[in-house]
Amino acid sequence: MIDIKNYLHEKQLLVVQALDKLMLSPEGDFADHVTCMRYSLFVGGKRVRPILCLAAGTCISGKNDIEMRLLPVACALECIHTYSLIHDDLPAMDNDDLRRGHPTCHKKYGEAEAILAGDGLLTFAFDLLSNPVHARGLSDSARLAIVHTIARAAGSLGMVGGQALDMDGEGKKLSFDQLKTIHRNKTGALITASVLSGALGAGADADQLRAMQVFGDNIGLAFQIVDDLLDVISTTEELGKTAGSDARHNKATYPAFFGVDKTRKMAEQAVQTSLDALSIFSDRADPLRALAQYIVDRTK
Amino acid sequence: MIDIKNYLHEKQLLVVQALDKLMLSPEGDFADHVTCMRYSLFVGGKRVRPILCLAAGTCISGKNDIEMRLLPVACALECIHTYSLIHDDLPAMDNDDLRRGHPTCHKKYGEAEAILAGDGLLTFAFDLLSNPVHARGLSDSARLAIVHTIARAAGSLGMVGGQALDMDGEGKKLSFDQLKTIHRNKTGALITASVLSGALGAGADADQLRAMQVFGDNIGLAFQIVDDLLDVISTTEELGKTAGSDARHNKATYPAFFGVDKTRKMAEQAVQTSLDALSIFSDRADPLRALAQYIVDRTK
Repeated sequence: MIDIKNYLHEKQLLVVQALDKLMLSPEGDFADHVTCMRYSLFVGGKRVRPILCLAAGTCISGKNDIEMRLLPVACALECIHTYSLIHDDLPAMDNDDLRRGHPTCHKKYGEAEAILAGDGLLTFAFDLLSNPVHARGLSDSARLAIVHTIARAAGSLGMVGGQALDMDGEGKKLSFDQLKTIHRNKTGALITASVLSGALGAGADADQLRAMQVFGDNIGLAFQIVDDLLDVISTTEELGKTAGSDARHNKATYPAFFGVDKTRKMAEQAVQTSLDALSIFSDRADPLRALAQYIVDRTK
Repeated sequence: MIDIKNYLHEKQLLVVQALDKLMLSPEGDFADHVTCMRYSLFVGGKRVRPILCLAAGTCISGKNDIEMRLLPVACALECIHTYSLIHDDLPAMDNDDLRRGHPTCHKKYGEAEAILAGDGLLTFAFDLLSNPVHARGLSDSARLAIVHTIARAAGSLGMVGGQALDMDGEGKKLSFDQLKTIHRNKTGALITASVLSGALGAGADADQLRAMQVFGDNIGLAFQIVDDLLDVISTTEELGKTAGSDARHNKATYPAFFGVDKTRKMAEQAVQTSLDALSIFSDRADPLRALAQYIVDRTK
């Protein structure tokens, strides 16, 4: 079995080093703007999405260099995730002051800079995914498929749409179906796309992509359920962001519907479904299996 | 010679019909969010960027169906332009109430919805550029090159970076060099990318792309100079957005540096340079030539 702590530590290092290398440099005309983007990118974070991308690639490809080849894709996913946090934290949205234990982007640099840092990170992700300098042997067709998978998942029929529903639903009484739709799109879509884009970059066939889709959908679900849970049972200090913020905003959450115990069981069930989907793969899927378990066991 | 009024009218219709068809439908879970994006997309606009894309494609390709094949690219450019207007108009940015003679997106739908409408339009542009359903015979390699050209131009080393500089510079005394850097990035980059992406989609060679780059850079410059000019000499009614807003925000502009007469001459000179760059092309470049002239002659 994989020691998930060591694995995460090693891959986080790999991702952060690649991000530092691939991200724009804070110099020249745009130094202030780039500094603002880099602040949010490097202030912390579990790097779950890029690591899922790398682990999915490793599962599909037997080649040693697959992680190195997928790093630009992995970094693009982290740029998109970071942009979504910056915009979600804005005063007009969730109005959060703390993120990963530090001031949110707009608290540190002002609202205009934060909006533009988000716009810049989102756009840079697509730059990275399509830049010929960063192809690393992936075919143009595979890269275009990755662009489409990520754009669809991050956009209005995915993450952005989910956030819009989440904002609309604040203070309203949502049904469980509505809550599921929000979760699936706001969090789940990009997690599934992280897995799929790693698999696409490694040359997965249709059956493998279908298994990865089920795996991604279910760890995405588990991830959001656990996020809901941690907002209830953790302190702000443990979490690195303001705890209890869902209840304060009257947000529909899994614990609000089902209580803490049943919510935890639902997360475990989703992880089990995700593991079942991996049954077609060899032990090359072990990092994915360990990541699925980590998602439900994590405490922040 | 081309009757630019008829030409623009015809192509605007083509672009608007394609946008209506290619843009997401305002139904299902995300109906409100999509409605908000569609409002800003269809509230008006000259459709200069998509039309430049189509005209550049026509200049390179002798085939009748090139416009039809480039329409998804053209529409993606308009989505990106519209997102940039929505975010620029936000209270934390230029704080404008009027755009194209109508309430700005955040005035009509609120700030959170406007931020998300911008995020959604930007992401949808890359969805459209990479969606296999909308390939229309363009190769994966050409489409990936278009994604990269547009992402680079729209991002932190282009449009977003230019807007960040523009915000930073408000109320400060900028040098003419700084003003040029802002203009080149904030407006020029996406205009050049519009021309280049049409040319790339039509299979332009390296010499043709170089000519298109010079053409695009110079009409982009002319476009921004004329924008500065119109803000001084037009009324809000003529302009469809708040006139005099540059002066009110103490923004560095061409007229502020050189006065109205010299500014107009500089715009004409930029257009002349752009026309010179087209000398390698046949009369298939006539739409581009007419568009260059229109840019300096326009009154809104």
